[in-house]
Amino acid sequence: MRANALRTAWQRGEKTINGWCSMPTSFGAEVMAHAGWDSLTIDMQHGLVDYQAAVTMLQAISTTDVTPMVRVPWLEAGVIMKVLDAGAYGVICPMINTAEDAERLVRWCSYPPRGDRSFGPIRALVYGGADYPENANATILKIAMIETVQAVENLDAILAVEGLDGVYVGPSDLANSMGHPPRLDPTVPAVIEACQDICRKAKAKGLYTGMHTGDPTYTAKVLSWGFDFATIASDSRLMQAKAQEVLQIARSGTAAKAEMSSY
Amino acid sequence: MRANALRTAWQRGEKTINGWCSMPTSFGAEVMAHAGWDSLTIDMQHGLVDYQAAVTMLQAISTTDVTPMVRVPWLEAGVIMKVLDAGAYGVICPMINTAEDAERLVRWCSYPPRGDRSFGPIRALVYGGADYPENANATILKIAMIETVQAVENLDAILAVEGLDGVYVGPSDLANSMGHPPRLDPTVPAVIEACQDICRKAKAKGLYTGMHTGDPTYTAKVLSWGFDFATIASDSRLMQAKAQEVLQIARSGTAAKAEMSSY
Amino acid sequence: MRANALRTAWQRGEKTINGWCSMPTSFGAEVMAHAGWDSLTIDMQHGLVDYQAAVTMLQAISTTDVTPMVRVPWLEAGVIMKVLDAGAYGVICPMINTAEDAERLVRWCSYPPRGDRSFGPIRALVYGGADYPENANATILKIAMIETVQAVENLDAILAVEGLDGVYVGPSDLANSMGHPPRLDPTVPAVIEACQDICRKAKAKGLYTGMHTGDPTYTAKVLSWGFDFATIASDSRLMQAKAQEVLQIARSGTAAKAEMSSY
Amino acid sequence: MRANALRTAWQRGEKTINGWCSMPTSFGAEVMAHAGWDSLTIDMQHGLVDYQAAVTMLQAISTTDVTPMVRVPWLEAGVIMKVLDAGAYGVICPMINTAEDAERLVRWCSYPPRGDRSFGPIRALVYGGADYPENANATILKIAMIETVQAVENLDAILAVEGLDGVYVGPSDLANSMGHPPRLDPTVPAVIEACQDICRKAKAKGLYTGMHTGDPTYTAKVLSWGFDFATIASDSRLMQAKAQEVLQIARSGTAAKAEMSSY
Amino acid sequence: MRANALRTAWQRGEKTINGWCSMPTSFGAEVMAHAGWDSLTIDMQHGLVDYQAAVTMLQAISTTDVTPMVRVPWLEAGVIMKVLDAGAYGVICPMINTAEDAERLVRWCSYPPRGDRSFGPIRALVYGGADYPENANATILKIAMIETVQAVENLDAILAVEGLDGVYVGPSDLANSMGHPPRLDPTVPAVIEACQDICRKAKAKGLYTGMHTGDPTYTAKVLSWGFDFATIASDSRLMQAKAQEVLQIARSGTAAKAEMSSY
Amino acid sequence: MRANALRTAWQRGEKTINGWCSMPTSFGAEVMAHAGWDSLTIDMQHGLVDYQAAVTMLQAISTTDVTPMVRVPWLEAGVIMKVLDAGAYGVICPMINTAEDAERLVRWCSYPPRGDRSFGPIRALVYGGADYPENANATILKIAMIETVQAVENLDAILAVEGLDGVYVGPSDLANSMGHPPRLDPTVPAVIEACQDICRKAKAKGLYTGMHTGDPTYTAKVLSWGFDFATIASDSRLMQAKAQEVLQIARSGTAAKAEMSSY
Repeated sequence: MRANALRTAWQRGEKTINGWCSMPTSFGAEVMAHAGWDSLTIDMQHGLVDYQAAVTMLQAISTTDVTPMVRVPWLEAGVIMKVLDAGAYGVICPMINTAEDAERLVRWCSYPPRGDRSFGPIRALVYGGADYPENANATILKIAMIETVQAVENLDAILAVEGLDGVYVGPSDLANSMGHPPRLDPTVPAVIEACQDICRKAKAKGLYTGMHTGDPTYTAKVLSWGFDFATIASDSRLMQAKAQEVLQIARSGTAAKAEMSSY
Repeated sequence: MRANALRTAWQRGEKTINGWCSMPTSFGAEVMAHAGWDSLTIDMQHGLVDYQAAVTMLQAISTTDVTPMVRVPWLEAGVIMKVLDAGAYGVICPMINTAEDAERLVRWCSYPPRGDRSFGPIRALVYGGADYPENANATILKIAMIETVQAVENLDAILAVEGLDGVYVGPSDLANSMGHPPRLDPTVPAVIEACQDICRKAKAKGLYTGMHTGDPTYTAKVLSWGFDFATIASDSRLMQAKAQEVLQIARSGTAAKAEMSSY
Repeated sequence: MRANALRTAWQRGEKTINGWCSMPTSFGAEVMAHAGWDSLTIDMQHGLVDYQAAVTMLQAISTTDVTPMVRVPWLEAGVIMKVLDAGAYGVICPMINTAEDAERLVRWCSYPPRGDRSFGPIRALVYGGADYPENANATILKIAMIETVQAVENLDAILAVEGLDGVYVGPSDLANSMGHPPRLDPTVPAVIEACQDICRKAKAKGLYTGMHTGDPTYTAKVLSWGFDFATIASDSRLMQAKAQEVLQIARSGTAAKAEMSSY
Repeated sequence: MRANALRTAWQRGEKTINGWCSMPTSFGAEVMAHAGWDSLTIDMQHGLVDYQAAVTMLQAISTTDVTPMVRVPWLEAGVIMKVLDAGAYGVICPMINTAEDAERLVRWCSYPPRGDRSFGPIRALVYGGADYPENANATILKIAMIETVQAVENLDAILAVEGLDGVYVGPSDLANSMGHPPRLDPTVPAVIEACQDICRKAKAKGLYTGMHTGDPTYTAKVLSWGFDFATIASDSRLMQAKAQEVLQIARSGTAAKAEMSSY
Repeated sequence: MRANALRTAWQRGEKTINGWCSMPTSFGAEVMAHAGWDSLTIDMQHGLVDYQAAVTMLQAISTTDVTPMVRVPWLEAGVIMKVLDAGAYGVICPMINTAEDAERLVRWCSYPPRGDRSFGPIRALVYGGADYPENANATILKIAMIETVQAVENLDAILAVEGLDGVYVGPSDLANSMGHPPRLDPTVPAVIEACQDICRKAKAKGLYTGMHTGDPTYTAKVLSWGFDFATIASDSRLMQAKAQEVLQIARSGTAAKAEMSSY
Repeated sequence: MRANALRTAWQRGEKTINGWCSMPTSFGAEVMAHAGWDSLTIDMQHGLVDYQAAVTMLQAISTTDVTPMVRVPWLEAGVIMKVLDAGAYGVICPMINTAEDAERLVRWCSYPPRGDRSFGPIRALVYGGADYPENANATILKIAMIETVQAVENLDAILAVEGLDGVYVGPSDLANSMGHPPRLDPTVPAVIEACQDICRKAKAKGLYTGMHTGDPTYTAKVLSWGFDFATIASDSRLMQAKAQEVLQIARSGTAAKAEMSSY
């Protein structure tokens, strides 16, 4: 079975950077897949992407060696198994607040005897290879989003769920849940501390850790805190930010250069 | 009928900046429409966009006051009339090399007596208003791409075609046709001179002028040459450029800030 | 944040009429949005519309000031949050039979501290404005369908759920549940009385009330009973009814005029 | 091969009424196919429908005995042959202005020896039956739109083109071409006379005749003039007209009944 | 209401063979519908098919008399009711492990008083006929997949759920759950025996029985065991198998003939 | 630039076998791409595939090393350039009947100075590599279909067009044009001879030669005649043939084995 390059990198102690696909476009996903990200996550939760579009995006990512993951809309069995069958190599699940939530996530992502995943890896066989059935459980990343006060309180129990591979901090929801504005790149000390605590505890239990960030300087910062991977913004925000930047340069007539290619 | 804001701006001597949509995504188009562009052009030629996706993108742009245009795949009657019926307020047509080409473009974009456009402005009525039929000819922009040596040689005849509203320089194709590499933001003096000549002659005949650029500093430059509008790159290139930029910052851990939003 | 025009109208004591979109077509939705409805509801339950099509329909409605709502397929967290993030200004949820159901609906539609809605209003920010995060809870309409005997029995408890904005009577299901044929525009006295009771009780608790109707004379009737809004049939039924009507006129050759436009 | 029910009806001297599909929705097409039309035409010219959506609409119509036709965007070989291969039983082609135009239409719609149609009736075989190849030329309707002054002047030559089955009057374009506003259901005597002349001459040559109308009383009128078939408005206009009608009834609270169904 | 041809056949003691649609293509479904299957099941669980594509596939199947069923992604109310409203004549639900699961399946598929299905059979009315509401409960097939050790242990209780029409054996998952490799066409005696037991017990209670197979000789075998119907592989596997077969013949240059048609 | 594996193989004197994609499904294309074909051609002429679907299919094929080609609907500039920009490595164009046709094909597929192809290889750059612009002309296969008596008569002139890489025999159309039934795998001596003549003459001029076949034994035969490549049927016919075969085996209960996989 095709190895999961994220596991390989993290096992070597390397950090990875994850891109985020919120727009339902297979070409956009292919461009992202060639931009240098280690992995790409198709966001079916807040992104404007539903399953049928996600499949074409998984195919587009599969034209490269970038590792494809999916953030699913919710802890719902149907869609989780569908994206796995479509070839996702990782599932990031929002709002895992209890050990029971985490257990359900792991079971739905794992074939027996560990779990209840139904067998029928239709595109996953094509992408992963003929020995996918035997190796899927050990290859697919099962990642729980820790993003509420309740999850933080239950963190030890969540981390103890066998088969859970990692945690992913959603700082906006976590801040919101703590009574602060829902922002990326937290500046409130208590929120920062919470993020760091989650990372520390998860690492201590041998789990992988990731976090969503907005600005790349903050990305560098969270990686320096110990996180194994971090996401930077999303496809649509990158496009929007650059659009606003080039418009400002063009309108001001300044000499600043935006480093756009010549094709 | 809803006015064409580009005409209004240009008649006041204002410059405008045009965004370029190459990805078949209505959400992407809506994000672009909120990013500050004066107009957006859906690229059905080199963009990965076909008619059915273009309609949803025209709708997305119509949630704002940004002026919607379409670059059609080729000088072909069917698609030109279809995008007009779908509500495009401007048609940019590639490879107008002769006065006969320009005449066909104008006729296909104009109702009788000037042209042969068939009547059935199904979404254009919804977008433009009930008096669209009477005012469409005077409102829709009919813009010829000048991008070959042949077109340059025939420029006077092309500019003399009644009803043609503007010219749009495609510097990559023009350079290619002149024997130089097909690049945006030309540095070869002969190509630069050709671009400036096209602008000068077209302005002298009272036509509007636009040009495709890659880097916003070059955009500012071509506007200073006299062009009424210029395009900066495209949605996918903006996304790609910003992705590469934030990855570099995140990986280098430098303090450079990418000005990404905090949502 | 863009105001919710339905709330504004209802607070002024005005009645509104809601259109219903069952066909997965963004152009159809745009035509409906220009037809004079106060609000439009995309029916993801019985309509042939899934999320990806619904997004393009929300965009189409956003070209106008008509208020966009979505009837979700079921009380399921994933899709409810997805349509909110896509910019729905109201969620009508079927089969709310208990206070616990209503509480879940409100929590999934509300950011903390009231609820559990995850933060990521990707298109909602574009549509609603930059202050959407702070104002969403107070702006979005959370409407429970009351359409079973069980719901009627639990009505007081349902109405007591803090944050529930309104109830919407589904007369077909309600009749069915009461042992009568599932029909719009009820004629069975017990069903009529049940509809009126729901309206009266909900109004007494300060909630907004709506009901689905088939024929516009019945619409007028339910508004006279006190309902704040009512829906008339659906896009496909309107099309079908008019098709049958014009065919009958054309075939009979009678002089009846169908008031069709001359374009 | 499945017979062409329109030919059968017309050969018996019966009149038929044609529905018009402008919205890209297979469900809408299926609803129309059950509404009582003799035939349905998918409008790929002014309708918001491209080929890929048209295929699903042809399938939807094929769930019934209604005869499926396509109005193609323009006299372009690629799309004409594609819709035939997809199972269209008639092609209505806009803007046939000369005998040469008509000859090209017939050739592109006919297998050798009469024409140049390329062989590959992929879905047409499924829909028409295994003997489609031998019978297609005699079954498929090839219909030229007569809608300009030029076409009227060349009418005799057009009608003389062997294999052309019928003409279809586009009154809006015809009026526009004659210097009158582009309206359905003409009231200008010269336009009415032109429509009647086209019908009379085509019938005299043994061709079938059709015309687009807006209001069903006008439909009855043109059938009484001798036309074999007529179209009434379109799916989106029927929906829009009924929407406006029911809104007026509901808002006025009058007792007028709109004859909507009780489901 | 259009009869359910599967019920009719099975009541006569006939065996039927079911095709399986895993590719999201309405044309593929139409080709399958003409290939000789008694029924076709659109696989929304492991197939790459989501609801919006499934609707067009149901329409494609409706061009024939083949009975359309859907395997839903999971025991989730929203999607189950949506596919019924779209015209599915049977629902095959995965992973029914307890009587409570089976009860929920039956309730979600049945109108009151037996169940909780919400009323709004939008396309089902078109496909099934005007008396669909009264007859749907007795016509629609509600079929539970038995595919775990837990389900086998609970089989008597599951079979006792009133209104459940049949069981469908998923041999891969069943084998997996029993500790064997997840394979179609079982060769492990214990798995074979389990399949036969399920069939025998379900038949004894008057339920219909089906099973998924891979090779048609195994299909014949399971039908000889008493199963009422069996599925053979899937559309994509048939295509893949034939592709590999013809490639081998063509490359070896052998005289073996693949029985391909001459169109 | 990524090499064109077909050119490489043919230059080494190897034969290749081409698959044919007629169904608009990216998953189907991906399955075909893993089935063992040397190249895959997306059929936009007779296949039910339009541009937007073709793009996702090109992406699916790009997950493998299989060479992607497109058969375009017709000799029309717009679509030819669009599929090249989307990454097609070969264009097969139907109905090339004259040297002028062939010249247009080559010009539209070639950048200056040889041709008029407009510059904007948006996805082709991603697929082919950064040096695509310089190498595209020499890499992309430009293949003319020879399928009429007229083409045969003009063959020498067609073959003399500089830059034309190959010819592809369409035996159905060729037979039809010669007055025989339009069949694959010709049995009429005159048609066979014509096919062989085309191959011989083209090879003599150094061009590559291909032919469409139905049954793989015929494929082997035409390769033995000297053709460099041949196509076998199409995705939908392979699926249909295997479906009919397995149904026959299952129904007859014979012991024949269909070699279906056990997943």
